[in-house]
Amino acid sequence: MQNEIIEKLIEQFRTLPGVGYKSAQRYAYSVLEGSISRAQNFANALLEAKQKIKFCKVCGNFTDGEVCSICQKRNRKVICVVKEPKDVISMEKVKDYDGVYHVLFGTISPLENRGPEDIHIKELLQRVNADGVQEVIMATNPDVEGDATAMYIARLLSPLGVKVTRLAQGVAMGSDLEYADEVTLSRALEERRELK
Amino acid sequence: MQNEIIEKLIEQFRTLPGVGYKSAQRYAYSVLEGSISRAQNFANALLEAKQKIKFCKVCGNFTDGEVCSICQKRNRKVICVVKEPKDVISMEKVKDYDGVYHVLFGTISPLENRGPEDIHIKELLQRVNADGVQEVIMATNPDVEGDATAMYIARLLSPLGVKVTRLAQGVAMGSDLEYADEVTLSRALEERRELK
Repeated sequence: MQNEIIEKLIEQFRTLPGVGYKSAQRYAYSVLEGSISRAQNFANALLEAKQKIKFCKVCGNFTDGEVCSICQKRNRKVICVVKEPKDVISMEKVKDYDGVYHVLFGTISPLENRGPEDIHIKELLQRVNADGVQEVIMATNPDVEGDATAMYIARLLSPLGVKVTRLAQGVAMGSDLEYADEVTLSRALEERRELK
Repeated sequence: MQNEIIEKLIEQFRTLPGVGYKSAQRYAYSVLEGSISRAQNFANALLEAKQKIKFCKVCGNFTDGEVCSICQKRNRKVICVVKEPKDVISMEKVKDYDGVYHVLFGTISPLENRGPEDIHIKELLQRVNADGVQEVIMATNPDVEGDATAMYIARLLSPLGVKVTRLAQGVAMGSDLEYADEVTLSRALEERRELK
Protein backbone atom coordinates (compact mmCIF):
# COMPACT_ATOMS: atom_id res chain seq x y z
CA MET A 1 0.00 0.00 0.00
CA GLN A 2 2.23 2.74 -1.29
CA ASN A 3 1.88 6.02 -3.05
CA GLU A 4 0.45 5.63 -6.56
CA ILE A 5 3.26 7.54 -8.28
CA ILE A 6 5.89 5.40 -6.58
CA GLU A 7 3.93 2.27 -7.53
CA LYS A 8 3.97 3.41 -11.15
CA LEU A 9 7.75 3.71 -11.08
CA ILE A 10 8.06 0.29 -9.42
CA GLU A 11 5.84 -1.18 -12.14
CA GLN A 12 8.19 0.20 -14.81
CA PHE A 13 11.22 -1.37 -13.17
CA ARG A 14 9.31 -4.64 -12.97
CA THR A 15 9.04 -4.76 -16.77
CA LEU A 16 12.81 -5.36 -16.89
CA PRO A 17 13.85 -9.01 -17.37
CA GLY A 18 14.24 -10.93 -14.11
CA VAL A 19 13.25 -8.04 -11.82
CA GLY A 20 10.73 -8.90 -9.09
CA TYR A 21 8.76 -6.55 -6.86
CA LYS A 22 11.40 -6.27 -4.17
CA SER A 23 14.23 -5.37 -6.54
CA ALA A 24 11.96 -2.97 -8.43
CA GLN A 25 11.08 -1.23 -5.16
CA ARG A 26 14.74 -0.99 -4.26
CA TYR A 27 15.54 0.58 -7.64
CA ALA A 28 12.63 3.02 -7.36
CA TYR A 29 13.68 4.13 -3.89
CA SER A 30 17.24 4.63 -5.01
CA VAL A 31 15.94 6.94 -7.74
CA LEU A 32 13.75 8.82 -5.25
CA GLU A 33 16.63 9.22 -2.84
CA GLY A 34 18.93 10.37 -5.64
CA SER A 35 19.21 13.80 -7.21
CA ILE A 36 16.78 15.24 -9.74
CA SER A 37 19.58 15.42 -12.33
CA ARG A 38 20.21 11.71 -11.96
CA ALA A 39 16.56 10.96 -12.72
CA GLN A 40 16.74 13.31 -15.69
CA ASN A 41 19.91 11.70 -17.03
CA PHE A 42 18.32 8.31 -16.64
CA ALA A 43 15.15 9.39 -18.47
CA ASN A 44 17.20 11.03 -21.23
CA ALA A 45 19.37 7.96 -21.71
CA LEU A 46 16.24 5.83 -22.09
CA LEU A 47 14.69 8.15 -24.65
CA GLU A 48 17.89 8.85 -26.56
CA ALA A 49 18.74 5.18 -26.85
CA LYS A 50 15.27 4.26 -28.01
CA GLN A 51 15.12 7.15 -30.48
CA LYS A 52 18.60 6.93 -31.98
CA ILE A 53 19.35 3.24 -31.89
CA LYS A 54 17.92 1.42 -34.89
CA PHE A 55 18.38 -2.03 -36.30
CA CYS A 56 21.18 -2.38 -38.86
CA LYS A 57 19.59 -2.68 -42.30
CA VAL A 58 21.91 -5.52 -43.20
CA CYS A 59 22.24 -7.74 -40.14
CA GLY A 60 19.63 -6.54 -37.62
CA ASN A 61 22.17 -5.67 -34.92
CA PHE A 62 21.73 -2.39 -32.99
CA THR A 63 23.33 0.68 -34.58
CA ASP A 64 22.90 4.44 -34.55
CA GLY A 65 23.44 4.66 -38.32
CA GLU A 66 21.96 2.78 -41.26
CA VAL A 67 24.50 -0.04 -41.33
CA CYS A 68 26.35 -1.18 -38.20
CA SER A 69 30.13 -0.91 -37.82
CA ILE A 70 30.57 -4.69 -38.03
CA CYS A 71 28.81 -4.91 -41.42
CA GLN A 72 30.86 -1.98 -42.70
CA LYS A 73 34.28 -3.34 -41.86
CA ARG A 74 34.26 -7.10 -41.79
CA ASN A 75 34.29 -10.12 -44.08
CA ARG A 76 30.80 -10.49 -45.51
CA LYS A 77 31.51 -13.97 -46.89
CA VAL A 78 30.99 -15.52 -43.44
CA ILE A 79 27.72 -14.95 -41.58
CA CYS A 80 27.13 -15.96 -37.97
CA VAL A 81 23.37 -16.39 -37.35
CA VAL A 82 22.12 -15.53 -33.84
CA LYS A 83 18.74 -15.31 -32.17
CA GLU A 84 18.90 -11.81 -30.64
CA PRO A 85 21.02 -8.65 -30.83
CA LYS A 86 22.52 -9.36 -27.39
CA ASP A 87 23.98 -12.62 -28.76
CA VAL A 88 26.18 -10.53 -31.06
CA ILE A 89 27.89 -9.10 -27.96
CA SER A 90 28.46 -12.63 -26.64
CA MET A 91 29.97 -13.84 -29.91
CA GLU A 92 32.15 -10.74 -30.20
CA LYS A 93 34.04 -11.93 -27.14
CA VAL A 94 35.70 -14.38 -29.55
CA LYS A 95 38.40 -12.01 -30.72
CA ASP A 96 39.46 -13.78 -33.92
CA TYR A 97 36.04 -13.99 -35.57
CA ASP A 98 36.18 -11.67 -38.57
CA GLY A 99 32.83 -12.39 -40.24
CA VAL A 100 29.50 -10.58 -39.95
CA TYR A 101 26.22 -11.44 -38.22
CA HIS A 102 22.58 -12.05 -38.95
CA VAL A 103 19.99 -11.56 -36.20
CA LEU A 104 16.89 -13.75 -36.56
CA PHE A 105 14.84 -11.93 -33.88
CA GLY A 106 13.56 -15.19 -32.44
CA THR A 107 13.56 -18.89 -33.14
CA ILE A 108 10.94 -21.13 -34.72
CA SER A 109 8.60 -22.16 -31.91
CA PRO A 110 5.37 -24.05 -32.64
CA LEU A 111 4.45 -23.74 -28.95
CA GLU A 112 4.52 -19.95 -29.16
CA ASN A 113 2.98 -19.93 -32.62
CA ARG A 114 6.15 -18.61 -34.24
CA GLY A 115 6.84 -20.02 -37.70
CA PRO A 116 9.75 -19.51 -40.15
CA GLU A 117 7.98 -16.50 -41.69
CA ASP A 118 7.88 -14.71 -38.32
CA ILE A 119 11.65 -14.45 -37.96
CA HIS A 120 14.27 -12.97 -40.31
CA ILE A 121 14.99 -16.05 -42.43
CA LYS A 122 13.95 -14.49 -45.73
CA GLU A 123 16.46 -11.68 -45.17
CA LEU A 124 19.21 -14.24 -44.54
CA LEU A 125 18.45 -16.01 -47.85
CA GLN A 126 18.64 -12.70 -49.67
CA ARG A 127 22.04 -11.95 -48.16
CA VAL A 128 23.38 -15.40 -49.00
CA ASN A 129 22.24 -14.95 -52.59
CA ALA A 130 23.49 -11.39 -52.97
CA ASP A 131 26.85 -11.44 -51.18
CA GLY A 132 28.32 -14.74 -52.45
CA VAL A 133 28.48 -16.05 -48.89
CA GLN A 134 30.82 -19.00 -48.32
CA GLU A 135 29.82 -20.09 -44.83
CA VAL A 136 26.83 -19.65 -42.54
CA ILE A 137 27.55 -20.46 -38.88
CA MET A 138 24.40 -21.30 -36.94
CA ALA A 139 24.88 -19.86 -33.43
CA THR A 140 21.34 -20.12 -32.13
CA ASN A 141 21.08 -21.34 -28.53
CA PRO A 142 21.81 -25.04 -27.93
CA ASP A 143 18.22 -25.85 -26.95
CA VAL A 144 15.29 -27.52 -28.73
CA GLU A 145 14.12 -24.40 -30.53
CA GLY A 146 17.63 -23.25 -31.39
CA ASP A 147 18.51 -26.69 -32.80
CA ALA A 148 15.29 -26.93 -34.80
CA THR A 149 15.78 -23.45 -36.25
CA ALA A 150 19.38 -24.28 -37.20
CA MET A 151 18.28 -27.50 -38.91
CA TYR A 152 15.50 -25.71 -40.77
CA ILE A 153 17.83 -23.00 -42.09
CA ALA A 154 20.53 -25.55 -43.00
CA ARG A 155 18.02 -27.37 -45.22
CA LEU A 156 16.93 -24.14 -46.87
CA LEU A 157 20.53 -23.19 -47.63
CA SER A 158 21.89 -26.55 -48.86
CA PRO A 159 20.52 -26.14 -52.43
CA LEU A 160 22.44 -22.86 -52.66
CA GLY A 161 25.76 -24.66 -52.21
CA VAL A 162 26.76 -22.66 -49.14
CA LYS A 163 28.54 -24.38 -46.26
CA VAL A 164 26.39 -24.38 -43.12
CA THR A 165 28.02 -25.11 -39.76
CA ARG A 166 26.78 -25.21 -36.18
CA LEU A 167 28.61 -24.19 -32.99
CA ALA A 168 30.10 -27.32 -31.43
CA GLN A 169 28.16 -28.63 -28.46
CA GLY A 170 29.77 -30.32 -25.50
CA VAL A 171 30.96 -29.79 -21.94
CA ALA A 172 31.82 -26.19 -21.21
CA MET A 173 35.41 -25.14 -20.54
CA GLY A 174 36.17 -24.93 -16.84
CA SER A 175 33.01 -26.78 -15.86
CA ASP A 176 32.79 -30.02 -13.88
CA LEU A 177 31.66 -33.33 -15.41
CA GLU A 178 29.83 -34.09 -12.18
CA TYR A 179 27.39 -31.25 -12.81
CA ALA A 180 26.94 -31.64 -16.57
CA ASP A 181 23.45 -32.82 -17.57
CA GLU A 182 22.84 -36.03 -19.52
CA VAL A 183 21.96 -34.34 -22.80
CA THR A 184 25.16 -32.27 -22.77
CA LEU A 185 27.29 -35.31 -21.92
CA SER A 186 25.58 -37.40 -24.55
CA ARG A 187 26.15 -34.70 -27.18
CA ALA A 188 29.79 -34.31 -26.10
CA LEU A 189 30.33 -38.05 -26.42
CA GLU A 190 28.65 -38.17 -29.84
CA GLU A 191 30.77 -35.35 -31.20
CA ARG A 192 34.03 -36.52 -29.63
CA ARG A 193 37.05 -35.81 -31.74
CA GLU A 194 40.36 -37.57 -32.13
CA LEU A 195 43.38 -36.31 -30.20
CA LYS A 196 46.48 -36.30 -32.35
CA MET B 1 33.13 -2.28 -27.26
CA GLN B 2 29.55 -1.24 -27.91
CA ASN B 3 27.73 1.71 -29.30
CA GLU B 4 28.22 4.84 -27.18
CA ILE B 5 24.51 5.54 -26.78
CA ILE B 6 23.84 2.00 -25.60
CA GLU B 7 26.80 2.28 -23.22
CA LYS B 8 25.26 5.42 -21.75
CA LEU B 9 22.01 3.59 -21.06
CA ILE B 10 23.88 0.66 -19.53
CA GLU B 11 25.77 3.09 -17.29
CA GLN B 12 22.45 4.50 -16.03
CA PHE B 13 21.15 1.06 -15.14
CA ARG B 14 24.43 0.37 -13.36
CA THR B 15 23.74 3.22 -10.94
CA LEU B 16 20.89 1.14 -9.47
CA PRO B 17 21.75 -0.70 -6.25
CA GLY B 18 23.18 -4.19 -6.80
CA VAL B 19 23.15 -4.01 -10.60
CA GLY B 20 26.35 -5.15 -12.33
CA TYR B 21 27.39 -4.70 -15.93
CA LYS B 22 25.78 -7.89 -17.17
CA SER B 23 22.37 -7.15 -15.64
CA ALA B 24 22.54 -3.53 -16.77
CA GLN B 25 23.24 -4.68 -20.32
CA ARG B 26 20.31 -7.08 -20.15
CA TYR B 27 18.00 -4.27 -18.98
CA ALA B 28 19.26 -1.90 -21.68
CA TYR B 29 18.73 -4.47 -24.41
CA SER B 30 15.22 -5.21 -23.19
CA VAL B 31 14.45 -1.49 -23.48
CA LEU B 32 15.96 -1.34 -26.97
CA GLU B 33 13.97 -4.37 -28.05
CA GLY B 34 10.75 -2.96 -26.55
CA SER B 35 8.41 -0.36 -28.02
CA ILE B 36 9.08 3.37 -28.07
CA SER B 37 6.02 3.96 -25.88
CA ARG B 38 7.45 1.67 -23.23
CA ALA B 39 10.65 3.71 -23.13
CA GLN B 40 8.58 6.87 -22.92
CA ASN B 41 6.42 5.51 -20.10
CA PHE B 42 9.55 4.49 -18.25
CA ALA B 43 11.16 7.91 -18.69
CA ASN B 44 7.94 9.64 -17.63
CA ALA B 45 7.57 7.49 -14.53
CA LEU B 46 11.13 8.38 -13.52
CA LEU B 47 10.60 12.09 -14.00
CA GLU B 48 7.12 12.20 -12.49
CA ALA B 49 8.20 10.29 -9.42
CA LYS B 50 11.24 12.48 -8.88
CA GLN B 51 9.29 15.71 -9.48
CA LYS B 52 6.13 14.95 -7.51
CA ILE B 53 7.38 12.83 -4.67
CA LYS B 54 8.66 14.96 -1.81
CA PHE B 55 9.66 14.27 1.74
CA CYS B 56 6.87 14.60 4.32
CA LYS B 57 7.40 17.82 6.31
CA VAL B 58 6.71 16.02 9.55
CA CYS B 59 8.35 12.61 9.35
CA GLY B 60 10.54 12.64 6.21
CA ASN B 61 8.73 9.74 4.51
CA PHE B 62 7.95 9.97 0.79
CA THR B 63 4.67 11.71 -0.07
CA ASP B 64 3.14 13.59 -2.98
CA GLY B 65 1.60 16.19 -0.64
CA GLU B 66 2.97 18.27 2.23
CA VAL B 67 2.30 15.80 5.00
CA CYS B 68 2.17 12.04 4.35
CA SER B 69 -0.97 9.95 4.86
CA ILE B 70 0.52 8.19 7.88
CA CYS B 71 1.19 11.46 9.73
CA GLN B 72 -2.31 12.68 8.90
CA LYS B 73 -4.24 9.72 10.23
CA ARG B 74 -2.29 7.95 12.92
CA ASN B 75 -1.39 8.24 16.60
CA ARG B 76 1.29 10.92 16.91
CA LYS B 77 2.09 9.98 20.49
CA VAL B 78 4.18 7.02 19.33
CA ILE B 79 7.08 7.61 16.92
CA CYS B 80 9.02 4.84 15.22
CA VAL B 81 12.48 6.10 14.20
CA VAL B 82 13.99 4.58 11.05
CA LYS B 83 17.11 5.18 9.01
CA GLU B 84 15.63 5.56 5.52
CA PRO B 85 12.24 6.04 3.83
CA LYS B 86 12.26 2.49 2.55
CA ASP B 87 12.32 1.23 6.14
CA VAL B 88 8.85 2.73 6.60
CA ILE B 89 7.53 0.26 4.01
CA SER B 90 9.19 -2.59 5.89
CA MET B 91 7.71 -1.52 9.24
CA GLU B 92 4.28 -1.01 7.72
CA LYS B 93 4.13 -4.76 7.11
CA VAL B 94 3.42 -5.00 10.87
CA LYS B 95 -0.31 -4.46 10.56
CA ASP B 96 -1.07 -3.48 14.16
CA TYR B 97 1.36 -0.60 14.47
CA ASP B 98 -0.72 2.54 14.74
CA GLY B 99 1.94 5.16 15.47
CA VAL B 100 3.84 7.48 13.14
CA TYR B 101 7.43 7.50 11.86
CA HIS B 102 10.55 9.61 11.85
CA VAL B 103 13.14 9.16 9.12
CA LEU B 104 16.71 10.00 10.18
CA PHE B 105 18.20 9.90 6.67
CA GLY B 106 21.22 7.99 7.83
CA THR B 107 22.89 6.85 11.03
CA ILE B 108 25.76 8.28 13.02
CA SER B 109 28.94 6.94 11.43
CA PRO B 110 32.36 8.21 12.47
CA LEU B 111 33.90 6.16 9.66
CA GLU B 112 31.92 8.04 7.04
CA ASN B 113 32.28 11.36 8.85
CA ARG B 114 28.58 11.53 9.68
CA GLY B 115 27.82 13.04 13.09
CA PRO B 116 24.54 13.58 14.97
CA GLU B 117 24.08 16.97 13.29
CA ASP B 118 24.16 15.39 9.83
CA ILE B 119 21.01 13.33 10.33
CA HIS B 120 17.50 14.40 11.36
CA ILE B 121 17.88 14.16 15.14
CA LYS B 122 17.08 17.83 15.81
CA GLU B 123 13.76 17.43 14.01
CA LEU B 124 12.96 14.40 16.17
CA LEU B 125 13.62 16.39 19.38
CA GLN B 126 11.31 19.15 18.15
CA ARG B 127 8.54 16.65 17.48
CA VAL B 128 8.94 15.01 20.87
CA ASN B 129 8.71 18.40 22.55
CA ALA B 130 5.80 19.67 20.49
CA ASP B 131 3.51 16.64 20.22
CA GLY B 132 3.61 15.29 23.77
CA VAL B 133 5.10 12.04 22.54
CA GLN B 134 4.80 9.08 24.92
CA GLU B 135 7.08 6.58 23.25
CA VAL B 136 9.91 6.64 20.74
CA ILE B 137 10.65 3.25 19.18
CA MET B 138 14.19 3.03 17.78
CA ALA B 139 13.98 0.92 14.63
CA THR B 140 17.36 1.65 13.11
CA ASN B 141 19.10 -1.40 11.60
CA PRO B 142 20.44 -3.96 14.11
CA ASP B 143 24.05 -3.25 13.22
CA VAL B 144 26.83 -1.28 14.91
CA GLU B 145 25.82 2.11 13.52
CA GLY B 146 22.12 1.51 14.07
CA ASP B 147 22.72 0.49 17.68
CA ALA B 148 25.03 3.45 18.35
CA THR B 149 22.51 5.89 16.87
CA ALA B 150 19.71 4.35 18.97
CA MET B 151 21.79 4.69 22.13
CA TYR B 152 22.71 8.27 21.32
CA ILE B 153 19.10 9.29 20.75
CA ALA B 154 17.93 7.43 23.86
CA ARG B 155 20.35 9.46 25.99
CA LEU B 156 19.20 12.70 24.39
CA LEU B 157 15.55 11.89 25.06
CA SER B 158 15.79 10.53 28.60
CA PRO B 159 15.79 14.01 30.27
CA LEU B 160 12.50 14.73 28.47
CA GLY B 161 10.77 11.89 30.31
CA VAL B 162 9.77 10.08 27.15
CA LYS B 163 9.93 6.30 27.03
CA VAL B 164 12.51 5.12 24.49
CA THR B 165 12.39 1.54 23.26
CA ARG B 166 14.41 -0.50 20.78
CA LEU B 167 13.24 -3.24 18.43
CA ALA B 168 14.03 -6.56 20.13
CA GLN B 169 17.00 -8.42 18.66
CA GLY B 170 14.68 -10.79 16.94
CA VAL B 171 16.07 -9.28 13.78
CA ALA B 172 19.37 -10.93 12.96
CA MET B 173 22.58 -9.02 13.77
CA GLY B 174 24.30 -7.54 10.71
CA SER B 175 21.25 -7.89 8.48
CA ASP B 176 19.22 -5.17 6.79
CA LEU B 177 15.63 -4.16 7.68
CA GLU B 178 14.68 -4.21 4.02
CA TYR B 179 15.06 -7.97 3.85
CA ALA B 180 13.54 -8.94 7.19
CA ASP B 181 10.40 -11.06 6.97
CA GLU B 182 7.11 -10.02 8.52
CA VAL B 183 7.17 -12.51 11.40
CA THR B 184 10.64 -11.41 12.48
CA LEU B 185 9.65 -7.76 12.30
CA SER B 186 6.42 -8.41 14.16
CA ARG B 187 8.25 -10.31 16.93
CA ALA B 188 10.85 -7.59 17.19
CA LEU B 189 8.15 -4.95 17.58
CA GLU B 190 6.34 -6.97 20.26
CA GLU B 191 9.47 -7.49 22.35
CA ARG B 192 10.88 -3.99 22.09
CA ARG B 193 12.71 -3.02 25.26
CA GLU B 194 13.41 0.21 27.01
CA LEU B 195 16.83 1.82 26.59
CA LYS B 196 18.17 3.18 29.91
